[in-house]
Amino acid sequence: MVVLKAASPPVPSVNKINNGFPCSNGTIKPLITPSPSSFINLDQGDPEVFRSYWRKKSEECTVVINGEDLMSYLSDTSNVCWFMLPELREAIQRLHRVVGNASAGIDKHIVVGTGSTQLFQAALFALSPSDSPIPINVVAASPYYSEYKDEVEILRSGLYRWGGDAREYDKNEAYIEVVTAPNNPCGSIRRAVANCEGEGKVIHDLAYYWPQYTPVTQQYDHDLMLFTFSKCTGHAGSRIGWAIVKDIEVARKMTRFIHMSSIGVSKESQTRVAKIIGVICDSYQEIGSSLDPDELFFEYSRRKLRERWEKLRAVVDKSNLFSLAKYPKAYCTFTNHTSESYPAFAWMKCKGSIEDCESYLRNLKVLVRGGKRFGVDQKYARVSLLSSDDVFNEFLTRISNATRNRE
Amino acid sequence: MVVLKAASPPVPSVNKINNGFPCSNGTIKPLITPSPSSFINLDQGDPEVFRSYWRKKSEECTVVINGEDLMSYLSDTSNVCWFMLPELREAIQRLHRVVGNASAGIDKHIVVGTGSTQLFQAALFALSPSDSPIPINVVAASPYYSEYKDEVEILRSGLYRWGGDAREYDKNEAYIEVVTAPNNPCGSIRRAVANCEGEGKVIHDLAYYWPQYTPVTQQYDHDLMLFTFSKCTGHAGSRIGWAIVKDIEVARKMTRFIHMSSIGVSKESQTRVAKIIGVICDSYQEIGSSLDPDELFFEYSRRKLRERWEKLRAVVDKSNLFSLAKYPKAYCTFTNHTSESYPAFAWMKCKGSIEDCESYLRNLKVLVRGGKRFGVDQKYARVSLLSSDDVFNEFLTRISNATRNRE
Repeated sequence: MVVLKAASPPVPSVNKINNGFPCSNGTIKPLITPSPSSFINLDQGDPEVFRSYWRKKSEECTVVINGEDLMSYLSDTSNVCWFMLPELREAIQRLHRVVGNASAGIDKHIVVGTGSTQLFQAALFALSPSDSPIPINVVAASPYYSEYKDEVEILRSGLYRWGGDAREYDKNEAYIEVVTAPNNPCGSIRRAVANCEGEGKVIHDLAYYWPQYTPVTQQYDHDLMLFTFSKCTGHAGSRIGWAIVKDIEVARKMTRFIHMSSIGVSKESQTRVAKIIGVICDSYQEIGSSLDPDELFFEYSRRKLRERWEKLRAVVDKSNLFSLAKYPKAYCTFTNHTSESYPAFAWMKCKGSIEDCESYLRNLKVLVRGGKRFGVDQKYARVSLLSSDDVFNEFLTRISNATRNRE
Repeated sequence: MVVLKAASPPVPSVNKINNGFPCSNGTIKPLITPSPSSFINLDQGDPEVFRSYWRKKSEECTVVINGEDLMSYLSDTSNVCWFMLPELREAIQRLHRVVGNASAGIDKHIVVGTGSTQLFQAALFALSPSDSPIPINVVAASPYYSEYKDEVEILRSGLYRWGGDAREYDKNEAYIEVVTAPNNPCGSIRRAVANCEGEGKVIHDLAYYWPQYTPVTQQYDHDLMLFTFSKCTGHAGSRIGWAIVKDIEVARKMTRFIHMSSIGVSKESQTRVAKIIGVICDSYQEIGSSLDPDELFFEYSRRKLRERWEKLRAVVDKSNLFSLAKYPKAYCTFTNHTSESYPAFAWMKCKGSIEDCESYLRNLKVLVRGGKRFGVDQKYARVSLLSSDDVFNEFLTRISNATRNRE
């Protein structure tokens, strides 16, 4: 579903209301394999790249749900997050113990959400003062994840408002800073940067803090950390995210928000995610690393991303069109090796006279997300590296051809 | 999980932030079967009553989900609601054709949501003018569903605000009226009632417009209709609702809201709901009514609710404590019979000197939702009739005993 074929007009007008996600405008239709005349969609981060692994593990991960299963709104009335299945909570705690990327022990509260998108909004609700006459400012250092601003602004809330680039924030007012580490779009590791007189609270969005994308250098232990299964394993259709929260009152308010927003979270997804996490952890804990490394999810997925980055850098280095950031090497406590980062997105900068990277790539029938959406210059664009192999290889072919045509 | 045992203090303080849903306060613990000393929870409408049917149909409704299934964010890029599985859309259309309660043909747009709760908020977003400096008023005739007000007010939106009782609304401003038919809490059939100079838009919340609760008297064809699987079959844990929408721009804005709120809806839940709807429709279309009527879901569930209402009315009629509304009989186009309504909730009014129905029942260790939450007098309370048989029978025993103790 990632490859879109253009009919007439040849360049599909991306409908603003869908913000980069496909919409029914009658001009784009899905194709199985890309042809030179088809648009390829590297705008969204739909994680097709890991599918081949899950195909191999298909049966091991199977869940069977019978007619009378999972019917109640309630899951665990003794837990703050009363709609979270206990087996999901335990699976999440186990996964963080195995990977060592975040502290999720019994002193922490876990809140499940319909993706980390819902949890981001639950966190804004929970961290905003309820008794303030003015909304609290929400800031993030640019380039910031393109959806934060719209998610903050969509309902014109009186509790919070978008405050722009965290580095430029200088109001003497309370604020919430969103720190995305590794950062979406640019892959760099981030810390809170807002520097002002006001009292700051921080949401750590750690969607990509998994060993396939970046070395795990420390076990994070922040007040409020967000994760999403979509980026951890590639199961985006399940819409499962989780927050790890220190303060029980914050966890309670987040739970209250999700209650008001959707009376909980799909139990079918919860039970499946618990199962898949179990399969990952079993493969590390019971089998160990003696097996074919491709049997181990994070080894497999890191190899896939490393190969893509190596191919992409080779093509970009030959071209006079783009540049890519270099990432520092670091020791990964999970793999016990020193390695580079292999981010989910390439943050490409156009060279020379090309002023608008998104438009340039659109002329090559490659849909990407331009820098302006991330609060920076349109010389930048974010390109998903999570597509299927066919689409990724077609992308490399197109930028190679564009390089030759320019020579 | 519906029966809660009180430890100390004997009456649990319902934590305000959880608004009637259970919270971790260490004082209430779930029990399997009620004992005379346990609290029974008839506050929420957790639909346990239909579970025995789905146990019988357990295998027929089984879904099997493999490791690589349902991984993408996307479902159908040719549809406005791009995250909805085509098989779910077709199942919903088929169900409405079989039941005849709403027009959901190809001229309508269907938007799936994480329960109808998310869709209600999507509808508010879609129907609110985006260019108005003042928020639009959202009104509903009392007694109105207790959660509407909180759902409207939770983020202090600048797009919409709670406008109170629709019958008292007399501003010369645009408004959105929510019409719940049959009504939650009182079971009556409703029409829009706001009568003022301003331009009105209507959301029809038809969560209970299914044959087990009320005679299907007509095929509704309103501009924006909301349904939820939770109340249709009792699968509340799946969190699946749907909107049937006439105007494509409204459907597009609702889709946009759900994109911003949670980037779509669990595909595991979607695929399971499509399967279960298929089993229901097959039983009516392939087998017909020649079988044991208890094999047919709506016959089974209507019989269960009718029996409960008959038992409840017998107990209440003997008591000097409460009264219950009578519902008019009507011809049901689905069953081809004339029958009463058997609402999911009993809307009980205390008689005589009892001023606060919720507190009175709490003294009997029965948790219910008092009239004030629905915008009316505290002489009223809403009592769920969707609990398990054990809990329902224990409720009858307690009000019978209270009647005897008062004599």
